[in-house]
Amino acid sequence: MNDTITLSHGSGGLQSNKLINEVFLKYFGNDILNQMNDAAQLEIDFKKLAFTTDSFVVNPLFFNGGNIGKLAVCGTVNDLAVSGAKPLYITSAFIIEEGFSIKKLEQIVMSMANEARKSGVKIVAGDTKVVERGNVDGIFINTSGIGRIYENVNINCANAREGDIVIVNGTLGDHGMTIMCARNKLGLVGDLRSDCACLNSLVDTMLEAYGGIHVIRDATRGGIAAVLNEISEFSNVTIALEENNLPVKKEVKGVTEMLGLDPLYIANEGKLCAFVPESHAQKVLSAMQKHPLGVNATIIGKVTEEIGQMVYLNTVVGGKRLVDMPSGIQLPRIC
Amino acid sequence: MNDTITLSHGSGGLQSNKLINEVFLKYFGNDILNQMNDAAQLEIDFKKLAFTTDSFVVNPLFFNGGNIGKLAVCGTVNDLAVSGAKPLYITSAFIIEEGFSIKKLEQIVMSMANEARKSGVKIVAGDTKVVERGNVDGIFINTSGIGRIYENVNINCANAREGDIVIVNGTLGDHGMTIMCARNKLGLVGDLRSDCACLNSLVDTMLEAYGGIHVIRDATRGGIAAVLNEISEFSNVTIALEENNLPVKKEVKGVTEMLGLDPLYIANEGKLCAFVPESHAQKVLSAMQKHPLGVNATIIGKVTEEIGQMVYLNTVVGGKRLVDMPSGIQLPRIC
Repeated sequence: MNDTITLSHGSGGLQSNKLINEVFLKYFGNDILNQMNDAAQLEIDFKKLAFTTDSFVVNPLFFNGGNIGKLAVCGTVNDLAVSGAKPLYITSAFIIEEGFSIKKLEQIVMSMANEARKSGVKIVAGDTKVVERGNVDGIFINTSGIGRIYENVNINCANAREGDIVIVNGTLGDHGMTIMCARNKLGLVGDLRSDCACLNSLVDTMLEAYGGIHVIRDATRGGIAAVLNEISEFSNVTIALEENNLPVKKEVKGVTEMLGLDPLYIANEGKLCAFVPESHAQKVLSAMQKHPLGVNATIIGKVTEEIGQMVYLNTVVGGKRLVDMPSGIQLPRIC
Repeated sequence: MNDTITLSHGSGGLQSNKLINEVFLKYFGNDILNQMNDAAQLEIDFKKLAFTTDSFVVNPLFFNGGNIGKLAVCGTVNDLAVSGAKPLYITSAFIIEEGFSIKKLEQIVMSMANEARKSGVKIVAGDTKVVERGNVDGIFINTSGIGRIYENVNINCANAREGDIVIVNGTLGDHGMTIMCARNKLGLVGDLRSDCACLNSLVDTMLEAYGGIHVIRDATRGGIAAVLNEISEFSNVTIALEENNLPVKKEVKGVTEMLGLDPLYIANEGKLCAFVPESHAQKVLSAMQKHPLGVNATIIGKVTEEIGQMVYLNTVVGGKRLVDMPSGIQLPRIC
């Protein structure tokens, strides 16, 4: 096989088949994908299905803690998981720049296969397009996924209620600051690394502890601030955060302070927030803390009795600060 | 709203929401999409599901007969339809270049909404990424789709059998030659236009005529030659085509002859081939010819009794010519 991707790899002919066999099927191969139908044919035995899509354009493609392939699988698995669904099947569609290294492509595909296996999803359909040099930056990946929505679970960003406790599963801003440092060649600061991870097993643990959790959302682009503002809007509630309780790694704190950034607005790829009725919050928190991806889980705030859609922060010096929807340019191509 | 896409439209904050509300929801809006969940939540009442994905990178974005948006909906609807499924739900994920015209984006989104409505699918989830100027060529779109596989239908590219009649629903090479002429500014030749169309209603008509059709495939990248070679391989059969019977528009014939190309290898976006047992071929053909997308349907060949995987053409001068898998660079970015 050639060392780099050529336009003929995207032409639907012999070279396309060679790439599919020697790279994609080699790592992704399973009983369904191997049939190479126009559409995967799946047997299902449930009535509520979750369906989601995300494209990934992260730059750089490889970073401390992951790469675009790992991110692409985790992102879609997480969108399904935080909808109260068991992720089952995903598709992967590649847009690759002519001249891209096949060795790098293999590394990316291996990471995808690895995350898919760990999170229990099958990659059942795919697509490959190649565009001329200079018309795409390296490689973009789309993943779409479907999952079975659990019975008796009703997670929805409109379900937050007064008194709900807001829990996150760990430190904020790790992914975004890792990408920013990598892109600006700031060098690696301490053990700064992306939190990129599939959260479906953590969500399972949380729902086993209490199946009635009101809202779960992963906090990606726009950080926890964007997600909390969306929940505040859709549920028509006010959310108060405690600055003292926000978990931020010292490496992230250092860089954000230096650059004048706020970890609340920095992207995560392995973090979620959950809105849990106060009566069950401690039980859910304890269960999370026993899970490898929730060791640093903590309560960061609650839904107040105030009227109106708002998110604010009770600061360490005793003031209040509005946490509004992020506006303007955040760091582009974070995911 | 600004006239062009900025990086902030992809940041997950206020401007992203504005774009979603003022462009995407404006045209795509439906009861499911409007809930704006991380994953669409769908009620389903069937057990066999088809799932597919495709990314679209066509250049130019607008061409005679369609645009990238129409293509993106038709392509995924067709992949479901030719799997013997009723297309139900699709996702749409955009990767847009900073500086792209919002007016053009709206035209593309309108076309998608239009095709979705006509073909009876709902767009239920989406994603938008913006990348810096020069890192993507205008706009790329991914669509993924799910559908309900019809009961008692078993369409599979491994199902072609000796004696099967090969039917196509109309002229070959229209899409590819339209794109080539547009890209090379050859000017429009006669009524040369893309055949881009959703074929699900035609497939329904065919299956009503005879539910036991062995294979249906749409003939996109690599043309009918690529598809027939794949079917020959997966079904382990020999396929003989009759050159006299190949339907090719005179405009396409003219340009392909001038450029030394073969319509068998040119992409279509509204053409399919079906493998039907001889006993039912006439019935299926007649039904197709009564459908607006099958007026020019015709028999182009059959599966012979010969042993081995091969596709060949009985030429008008009485010879035989091998129709092998396309190799090397075809026209890139045809879809």
